Amino acid sequence: MKKPINPIDRSPMIERMKKNLLLDVKRTAVITIDCQRGNLDPKVASLPVPDLECRRVLSGINSLIAIASKIGIPIIHVTSAYEEPLLRAHPFVQAMLSAKESFTPHRQSDYARHKRPGSPEAELMPEIIVRTTDYRIDSKRTFDMFYGTQLEILLRALGVETLLLAGCNTNTCVLSSTFGAYIRNFRVVVLSDCVASAYGEDLHHFSLLNIQRRLGWVITLDELKEKLEIAG
Amino acid sequence: MKKPINPIDRSPMIERMKKNLLLDVKRTAVITIDCQRGNLDPKVASLPVPDLECRRVLSGINSLIAIASKIGIPIIHVTSAYEEPLLRAHPFVQAMLSAKESFTPHRQSDYARHKRPGSPEAELMPEIIVRTTDYRIDSKRTFDMFYGTQLEILLRALGVETLLLAGCNTNTCVLSSTFGAYIRNFRVVVLSDCVASAYGEDLHHFSLLNIQRRLGWVITLDELKEKLEIAG
Amino acid sequence: MKKPINPIDRSPMIERMKKNLLLDVKRTAVITIDCQRGNLDPKVASLPVPDLECRRVLSGINSLIAIASKIGIPIIHVTSAYEEPLLRAHPFVQAMLSAKESFTPHRQSDYARHKRPGSPEAELMPEIIVRTTDYRIDSKRTFDMFYGTQLEILLRALGVETLLLAGCNTNTCVLSSTFGAYIRNFRVVVLSDCVASAYGEDLHHFSLLNIQRRLGWVITLDELKEKLEIAG
Amino acid sequence: MKKPINPIDRSPMIERMKKNLLLDVKRTAVITIDCQRGNLDPKVASLPVPDLECRRVLSGINSLIAIASKIGIPIIHVTSAYEEPLLRAHPFVQAMLSAKESFTPHRQSDYARHKRPGSPEAELMPEIIVRTTDYRIDSKRTFDMFYGTQLEILLRALGVETLLLAGCNTNTCVLSSTFGAYIRNFRVVVLSDCVASAYGEDLHHFSLLNIQRRLGWVITLDELKEKLEIAG
Repeated sequence: MKKPINPIDRSPMIERMKKNLLLDVKRTAVITIDCQRGNLDPKVASLPVPDLECRRVLSGINSLIAIASKIGIPIIHVTSAYEEPLLRAHPFVQAMLSAKESFTPHRQSDYARHKRPGSPEAELMPEIIVRTTDYRIDSKRTFDMFYGTQLEILLRALGVETLLLAGCNTNTCVLSSTFGAYIRNFRVVVLSDCVASAYGEDLHHFSLLNIQRRLGWVITLDELKEKLEIAG
Repeated sequence: MKKPINPIDRSPMIERMKKNLLLDVKRTAVITIDCQRGNLDPKVASLPVPDLECRRVLSGINSLIAIASKIGIPIIHVTSAYEEPLLRAHPFVQAMLSAKESFTPHRQSDYARHKRPGSPEAELMPEIIVRTTDYRIDSKRTFDMFYGTQLEILLRALGVETLLLAGCNTNTCVLSSTFGAYIRNFRVVVLSDCVASAYGEDLHHFSLLNIQRRLGWVITLDELKEKLEIAG
Repeated sequence: MKKPINPIDRSPMIERMKKNLLLDVKRTAVITIDCQRGNLDPKVASLPVPDLECRRVLSGINSLIAIASKIGIPIIHVTSAYEEPLLRAHPFVQAMLSAKESFTPHRQSDYARHKRPGSPEAELMPEIIVRTTDYRIDSKRTFDMFYGTQLEILLRALGVETLLLAGCNTNTCVLSSTFGAYIRNFRVVVLSDCVASAYGEDLHHFSLLNIQRRLGWVITLDELKEKLEIAG
Repeated sequence: MKKPINPIDRSPMIERMKKNLLLDVKRTAVITIDCQRGNLDPKVASLPVPDLECRRVLSGINSLIAIASKIGIPIIHVTSAYEEPLLRAHPFVQAMLSAKESFTPHRQSDYARHKRPGSPEAELMPEIIVRTTDYRIDSKRTFDMFYGTQLEILLRALGVETLLLAGCNTNTCVLSSTFGAYIRNFRVVVLSDCVASAYGEDLHHFSLLNIQRRLGWVITLDELKEKLEIAG
């Protein structure tokens, strides 16, 4: 498994799809996923994203929030937490914890204490600017932001069809939530400046490739700004 | 995106996890996903898996079925189909079809006619040996085998906790169904000899890496046989 | 529990709500629920609706189908079946079967053999006229027509917002499906000429009262015809 | 609709089923539903339960909590709230609000301001004694306590199979949640001393009849105490 993997070049298709993408501001929402201290604050993270990546995505997410606020796109912050019985009940998590394996390759994770409700790890990153009109969803208990949460009810009530996704981890919550959005017929646009992974840059990159080639769009903040000027 | 991606080496962790894996035959089921002519029969496939890969996985799946039949593990064949309004309603599919893009890189896909209910493309591959006691689920309408199907009801009634997964495509239905199983607390074991992708070998490999490092187990048929002798 | 229950009179509210109801033919579908021989064919029914009620609703449903066909409203037939492990797995069903209790008050039910997949009991009533363009959903395994079925996917793809409901039993599948529709933001209109119950006329009536007073609309076929002329 | 409805007498079956009911304390949880000021505090209620009924169920629920605490049964408080777009998006709610209809027959409801997140109406009743070890679920946005909430994830992790239900309203959230529990194979036991309705005593009674005859058990607190002594 250690030999390099050569990505197939589908850039012509991807570029044409990007060009065709139109964003209807009235039917779009920004969703941040798991931007919590347990992931993005190197001081307390129980499942740490590498430090440089933390800074990169937090900066990206605040830019995204500024853009959305300016043109009136609703912002929804989705966060997760795990009551103690939940970790014990999961067969894969339980197997990893029993064997004292680290979920993260670059630094030891401490998943047994990952984001208990009310813990510092479960807090939204203090850097993230939250307005009183933003929506908060803290019922997420697993990867997919739709599963066991009120997110779909809220999105349907808001008339939202397109999701601008940001947060972590690219290959777990972001990818699973992209599948969750796809199967419910939402248009998914992932902001590459706003997503990162604790599990390795290889899985981060491949998740974005998988999304571009079969699930939705991956664009930069600069490309988003261009799109919104075109759409506006 | 064309430069090679070097996978992080997590083989020590993966090997230890494999060694620790115990299979309880009474609580295990085989699930085949989308083993249909629209995917695996090169003559009619509207979303074709490469020919050699078709032969590899069909051979693998029949071996898996033989193993499961021998020791009394239930087998569930899940297949998908798309009524015409479904394809038109999906924003990503619609964008791809409007732009006349191919979903598959090695050969042109024909997704607009992909697996209508009752069509030859929607048929289960004739090579696959189905016993009258096997279960059939044909309500799948999107990637995740759980979403909009009776699969979870059936698995809970059977007392199943561990899923042996086979079928296609590794980076879409298999990966999405692995997420679907993980979030519902099932133990997922993907048989590497029994999965393939129409979207490129890179995404096939990445998906297996992602599963091994965060979601479940990926083993060969030989490893499965060993496990079952140990467990038996 | 044997003393009469006096229904509160909310008829002024109900009448005003009926008057205000507008049906958009382009966003409406007819759904028949469990119109199967196991329920409505007195000769083989394992959970029998009283004979006179069978005739009443079958006649009503064929009128409803004729109206819908005439003006191009899509028709979806949802049916249920129970693999043997499903009945054994349910705590209430199991308790009833162990105690040899009848589910139905007027005649002994035979729930242990109720609607196995492929059985005569699971067949759609032969009297019901099905066109090749109608949709069939046979993945239903419990009361709620949405739970574990592809129904919501189909309705969203068709752009349907209003459901005209028919079938049985009023206090179980119809009521549970009405709740299922309500919580997903569909407008529910139950046709009183087209629903019946095997569990007793009291529960049939109260279910309709509950729907009218808190969940949706209950109208006759004559009222439907009037509405459609107004809307047309 | 104003003439009395005579309930069918199924008391012999119901009594036998009650007698057979066994409660496994290790696999049972108490769930309170919507015990909030917007329902049960006559001073601020936007959807008021009649005053005497408020007192009856609050007293009952505190007894239930005392019993559960004593023998170590987990307690889960589920509450609901409605962001403003949610009310506007629902076709039945919207029709009722547009026509200025009251949801409640005995006193005018004020549904347009019903339980906004963070409002006094959304608070759990202060009379209810909550321990730090109790679970809180506040993601409920519609009738069914399972739909769009993390409840099922929590119950599965706790190994719970039997639910002791309390709260309001009997014919909406309690009944819909009973259906939600039934279709997910949970055993439902409703405590008659602990449920009430703002919509009329007739619908309250009918809902309990419907549960007893087809969905689960309805028992008093005294019967519960007896059962738990037997089981203990």
